[in-house]
Amino acid sequence: MERKIKILGTGKYLPTRRVTAAELEEKLGLAAGWVEKKSGVSVRHFVTNETAAQMGAIAARRALEAAGLSLHEIDCIVCASGTAQQEIPCTAALIQEELQLSKSGIPCFDINATCLSFVTALDVMSCQMAVGIYERVLIISSEISSAGLNWEQKESCVLFGDGAAAVVIGRTPETESSRILGSSMKTYSEGAHYSEIRGGGTLIHPRQFAQGREADFAFDMDGRKIFRLTSQLITGFVDRLLSSASVTKEQIRTVIPHQASGMAMRIMAGKLGFSDQQMVNILADHGNVIAASIPMALHEAIGQNRVQRGDHLMLLGTSAGLSLGGIVLEY
Amino acid sequence: MERKIKILGTGKYLPTRRVTAAELEEKLGLAAGWVEKKSGVSVRHFVTNETAAQMGAIAARRALEAAGLSLHEIDCIVCASGTAQQEIPCTAALIQEELQLSKSGIPCFDINATCLSFVTALDVMSCQMAVGIYERVLIISSEISSAGLNWEQKESCVLFGDGAAAVVIGRTPETESSRILGSSMKTYSEGAHYSEIRGGGTLIHPRQFAQGREADFAFDMDGRKIFRLTSQLITGFVDRLLSSASVTKEQIRTVIPHQASGMAMRIMAGKLGFSDQQMVNILADHGNVIAASIPMALHEAIGQNRVQRGDHLMLLGTSAGLSLGGIVLEY
Repeated sequence: MERKIKILGTGKYLPTRRVTAAELEEKLGLAAGWVEKKSGVSVRHFVTNETAAQMGAIAARRALEAAGLSLHEIDCIVCASGTAQQEIPCTAALIQEELQLSKSGIPCFDINATCLSFVTALDVMSCQMAVGIYERVLIISSEISSAGLNWEQKESCVLFGDGAAAVVIGRTPETESSRILGSSMKTYSEGAHYSEIRGGGTLIHPRQFAQGREADFAFDMDGRKIFRLTSQLITGFVDRLLSSASVTKEQIRTVIPHQASGMAMRIMAGKLGFSDQQMVNILADHGNVIAASIPMALHEAIGQNRVQRGDHLMLLGTSAGLSLGGIVLEY
Repeated sequence: MERKIKILGTGKYLPTRRVTAAELEEKLGLAAGWVEKKSGVSVRHFVTNETAAQMGAIAARRALEAAGLSLHEIDCIVCASGTAQQEIPCTAALIQEELQLSKSGIPCFDINATCLSFVTALDVMSCQMAVGIYERVLIISSEISSAGLNWEQKESCVLFGDGAAAVVIGRTPETESSRILGSSMKTYSEGAHYSEIRGGGTLIHPRQFAQGREADFAFDMDGRKIFRLTSQLITGFVDRLLSSASVTKEQIRTVIPHQASGMAMRIMAGKLGFSDQQMVNILADHGNVIAASIPMALHEAIGQNRVQRGDHLMLLGTSAGLSLGGIVLEY
């Protein structure tokens, strides 16, 4: 199931406001050092006035610049975020508006698999391109996690940050070898309630916020249960993904993991047998930026020359659902 | 861009509670006959205790039964709805849980293009199947519009209903000719704010509901502006879609339109030159069920023998965004 798709450019945007571990320790009445030790995050960014569409549009412009493309060379815009800007319409349309493409007709829709939204969107859109529907697609993950944090749940609220990342993909020229080699996603809804925001949709409408249901509108996570279920599944999942892509673990030059938490990433690397050299870790100065974590880590790895054309990469993550997802590609 | 994909089965679920035009006229203090005249809707259904995942799971079981398939023969579940059950996780995972597939690993994610979510999901997933990623995919649209209606905006609140529809698609056997012949989507965000729910996402968080922002959490629609923009675009859009599919208007046996409103459907048919015989209209006893409208109308048309194998169909709709979308297929 190879698809001759090439990552043409990447971009990111971080909100101007930096929030340090020390600031959160003061806010939450925690001992100095607690936040970094528990989360692995020294600094994250929170929006002040930035909207998801604005952040997404800036990241998109930067990705296009890196690709040497103009806005009008894009023929589809997909927003791949775990959070939405509004209930209606989809965030991709709001990003199109920010990009001043409002009369362009460029199709816009959202794909949501929480933290795996980018991986799912890349998988899905590569197939649309392989079939010949689109030539160049912009995938944008823009997340404002700070809006929905539960400040009573200290272990989760210190993990997250806001920000956006964008990736432009196009068909690989005949003479080049960039391609997706394999992909996989698995969902185990036995873990559907291990991490959730119960409110905000049609089950618990925002009008119930004022009726004593505040906690239902904040992120609720049971890290231990997620860890236990993920641990059972991740090794087999990665082995099958590699085998479907006909690539060995040693041939993977770089792993771009979801930046879930310091502990999750250490344990994942250990269980899977990936070295620190292989694993890209941007957690300390970004936090967990939900679906933007993977494209942002990819952007950083490219910027640091840790990813070269011809390299085999693995994008790998877990998400609420509970889902595991990954893509093996030649960059 | 043909894809040899076959619609194997469809199913629907309507909530038990029927809400008549007369009931709404009494609730809203309107003259007898106003609701039907303005909206074209005599009866719609509103949920009482049903959740989106429950409705979606029932529709899914019915679609599988119609297809003669068991749950475990499905290898992907996509929820294609304009409304979500919860902020996190995606509704598809919650439907998987309702289907008691919680240990199955069947991948689950959501695709959102508001009222066009089903059309977009069918387009996208047919490409994943054409590339060989999946064999049989379940696409479910489950909508609870009644949670977000604006009862001050009489022209919009009388249009909508709740309900779910599901479609199972599979690869077409060698000896058969079912296939997607063409598809198109166009988004013009100049109309992004013509129909919206501004609240509920990261822009206006549910906590602001209690701070005098109630109206931001209800559906806000400017029907006249939507109508004006859509009217400018629809004829050219459909002509190009037909031409890309190499099918003439006369060869389209049945049009399955989004059930936006009585007036919208009449004007669309008139402008496009489709006859009443060609257009499927289930508005009067379903209302506008957001993204579920198109698969529900398809289900009804199949049940009424208005759609036969070998027929050319056109799925066609508009959505918040503002988007136009359509698929031409041989059933």
